[in-house]
Amino acid sequence: MSVTAPLGFRAAGVAAGLKPSGSRDVAVVVNDGPSRAAAGVFTANRVKAAPVLWSQQVLRGGRVRAVVLNSGGANACTGADGFTDTHTTAEHAAALLDDSAAEIAVCSTGLIGERLPMDALLAGLDEAVPAASRDGGINAADAIRTTDTVAKFAFRRGEGYTVGAMAKGAGMLAPALATMLCVITTDADLPAEQLDAVLRTATATTFDRVDTDGCMSTNDTVLLLASGASGTTPELAEFQQQVTAVCADLCRQLITDAEGASKSIAIEVVGAAGEADAVAAGRAVARSALLKCAVHGEDPNWGRVLSAVGTTDAAFEPDRVNVAINGVWICRGGTVGDDRAKVDMRGREVTITVDLAAGSDAATIWTTDLTADYVHENSAYST
Amino acid sequence: MSVTAPLGFRAAGVAAGLKPSGSRDVAVVVNDGPSRAAAGVFTANRVKAAPVLWSQQVLRGGRVRAVVLNSGGANACTGADGFTDTHTTAEHAAALLDDSAAEIAVCSTGLIGERLPMDALLAGLDEAVPAASRDGGINAADAIRTTDTVAKFAFRRGEGYTVGAMAKGAGMLAPALATMLCVITTDADLPAEQLDAVLRTATATTFDRVDTDGCMSTNDTVLLLASGASGTTPELAEFQQQVTAVCADLCRQLITDAEGASKSIAIEVVGAAGEADAVAAGRAVARSALLKCAVHGEDPNWGRVLSAVGTTDAAFEPDRVNVAINGVWICRGGTVGDDRAKVDMRGREVTITVDLAAGSDAATIWTTDLTADYVHENSAYST
Repeated sequence: MSVTAPLGFRAAGVAAGLKPSGSRDVAVVVNDGPSRAAAGVFTANRVKAAPVLWSQQVLRGGRVRAVVLNSGGANACTGADGFTDTHTTAEHAAALLDDSAAEIAVCSTGLIGERLPMDALLAGLDEAVPAASRDGGINAADAIRTTDTVAKFAFRRGEGYTVGAMAKGAGMLAPALATMLCVITTDADLPAEQLDAVLRTATATTFDRVDTDGCMSTNDTVLLLASGASGTTPELAEFQQQVTAVCADLCRQLITDAEGASKSIAIEVVGAAGEADAVAAGRAVARSALLKCAVHGEDPNWGRVLSAVGTTDAAFEPDRVNVAINGVWICRGGTVGDDRAKVDMRGREVTITVDLAAGSDAATIWTTDLTADYVHENSAYST
Repeated sequence: MSVTAPLGFRAAGVAAGLKPSGSRDVAVVVNDGPSRAAAGVFTANRVKAAPVLWSQQVLRGGRVRAVVLNSGGANACTGADGFTDTHTTAEHAAALLDDSAAEIAVCSTGLIGERLPMDALLAGLDEAVPAASRDGGINAADAIRTTDTVAKFAFRRGEGYTVGAMAKGAGMLAPALATMLCVITTDADLPAEQLDAVLRTATATTFDRVDTDGCMSTNDTVLLLASGASGTTPELAEFQQQVTAVCADLCRQLITDAEGASKSIAIEVVGAAGEADAVAAGRAVARSALLKCAVHGEDPNWGRVLSAVGTTDAAFEPDRVNVAINGVWICRGGTVGDDRAKVDMRGREVTITVDLAAGSDAATIWTTDLTADYVHENSAYST
C-alpha cells in the first residue's frame, strides 16, 4: 500500500541495469488526475544535484504529472551535462505519457560525481511507463532502495480520501548514497498552495528532525502529489494530521533501517524556552559523536549530553538541567542524579530526555548510534 | 624542554593515586618571577568545569603564581561541591607556596560527573610543590596525560628570551577525556594585557582550528605565564611569532597522537572571500563524518567535500569550486576533474585543498579520520 494506495496513481519499478547487482533501479509514479496539484521540499544544501535543480523548477508550477526516480547514481556534481541528462529523462518520460516535461519531476540517488548511464535509464523508462499500474507501488518503493534492507512505504485513510507514500534512505547514514527520497500521494482534492503548506508543516517536525550523522545530502527530495480522484476536499487540520503521520511513520522506518546503526535514539528536549531552543539542543546532542559512541556502548554518559547542550545558545542554566536516559534521571541540577546502574540500555530503542528547566516548549530529534559498522560502510564503498 | 625551558619556572609531576594505573596524575608549574603576568583562554562551552570557572576568575586579575593540574578526573558537572574542591586545591597549593589562592590556576582532565578524590589530590600537592624544580617540566607534561601515548611539549628561543610549553589531549578525540590543556611559559617581560592579546591571536589560528570530532570540552584551558626572568621585553610581533609557533607545534603533536585516528588531515581552504568564510568551509569539511570515513578508507571522495561546503553560507558558486586531494585536482569547476586514480592517500598525512574561487583569503583546519578504533574507544571506556 505504497504510493498507489490513493486513487488516480499508477507506479512501476524495473531493473534497467543502473545497479551492478541487477536489482530494480528505475521507478515511475504517474498521476492520472483529475488534479495534478503538487508540492515539494528539497535539500537545503547549496550544492544541489541536477534532478533537484530540475524538480525545483517543475514544482514552482505547482503541477506534477509523473515522478521518475532512479537509484544507482545521484547525478550530483555532474555539471551542465548532468543537468541535460535530467532534462532528457523528463522529456523522455513526457513523450511516453504524451505530456509536458515541465510537469515531470526527477529524483536520483547513488554516487556523487558520476554521469548516469543514459541509454540504460531511458530504456528503463520505456519499460516502466507502460508497466505502471495500480499494483506497482511496492515495486516502485523497491526500485529506489540503495542500501536500504527493506522497501519503505506507509499509508493512512482519512475521511473519504487516502494518503500513501514511499521513501528510501536514512539521512546520510546510508553509505555513499546520502539521500532521502520520499513521494507522498493522495486522492484528496486540494490546491498546490495548501499542499505546500501541509508538506512544509509535516516535514518540519518529521524529516527535518531526523539527524543521523549531521551530514546533508545534495539530493534530498520530498514530494506531495494530489490526484483529486476521491472527489474529497478534506478538512485541512485532519489532512495535515494524516500527512504528518505518514511522514513520521517513514522516519521511524528510516531510523530503524539505518545502516551501521544498532540503536534508534530519540532525543526529547523538554522545558525549553521556545521550540527553536528545544530543536537546537536536541540537534547538538544528536550530532555529538562522543554521545553516539556512548549509546552504542550502552553507557549512560550524561556528561556528554550536557557538554553537547552547552555548545548551543538555547536558554538554560547549567546547574538546573536534568537528564534522563530511558526514564532514569541520572543527572539532576547539572550534576549526578539517580544511580546510573538503574539505566537499562540493552534494547534497540533509547530515549534521552533533556529538561532545560527554562520554559515549557519541547521537541524530539531522532538519531542513531555511531558504530564501527558505520565507519566500515562509509570508508570502503567507492574503491 | 617543556614549561621549565624559560627562566623563572619550576615544575613537577607526581603519582598521587587519582589514576588507577598508578601513573603520574598531579602536576604543578610554579612561576618564581619576578613578574607573574598571565593570560588564559578557556572553553566556549557553557557547561564549564569547576576548575575553568575558578581559573577564569584568577586570570581576570592578570597574575598567576602557580598552576595545579590533574588528570584522573575533570571535576565537571560536579555542582557547588566540585567548585569547593577546586577552591580547596588552590588554597592548599597557596599555603604550600606561602602565597595567595587568588593567583593559583587549576586545570583538571578526566571523566565528567565525578568528584575528585581530594585526600589523594592534596597529598599529591604536598609532594609535588616541594619537588618542583627546573628539571620537572617533562614530568609535569607526563602527569597531565590521559590517553595521550606521549607527553607533549615544545619550546622556541627568541631574541633574549625563551618560550616553553606542554599540552595534553587531542580535542575531543581522546576517549572520554575530552579536554585540551596547555600551559605556555616565557621568561620574557610583558604585561598581562599584551600576553592576553598575543595568546588570543595565537590560539585563533592554531588550537581553535583543530577540530577532531566537532565536540567541545567542558575543561579546555590554555594559559600563558610570563616570569620576566630574562629581563627582556621582546618586540611584540616577534614574540607573537614564537608563541604561535609553539602552539602550532603542539597542535601537530595533538593531531598525530589523536586516539583512534590513522590519518592527520589538513583542510586548506583557499580562494575565499574572507577568512571567516575559509574557516567555516574548512570546519564543515572537517566535521563531515562521511568525509572522515572516506579518508580512513583512502577514498578520494571529493563529492563529500562539496556536499559539506554546500552546508555553509560561505561565498562560492557550486560550479566554480575546485578540490585537490594530496595535490591532485580531482574536482574542477564543481564536477569531475583529474583522474582519481592519481591520488595517493597511503601516507598518514592527507591534505585536502578546497578552492572556493571567490576571493583571496585562506585558512587551514586540522582534523583526523573517523575510524572503528574511535568508536571502540569512545563507546567502552566508562563502563
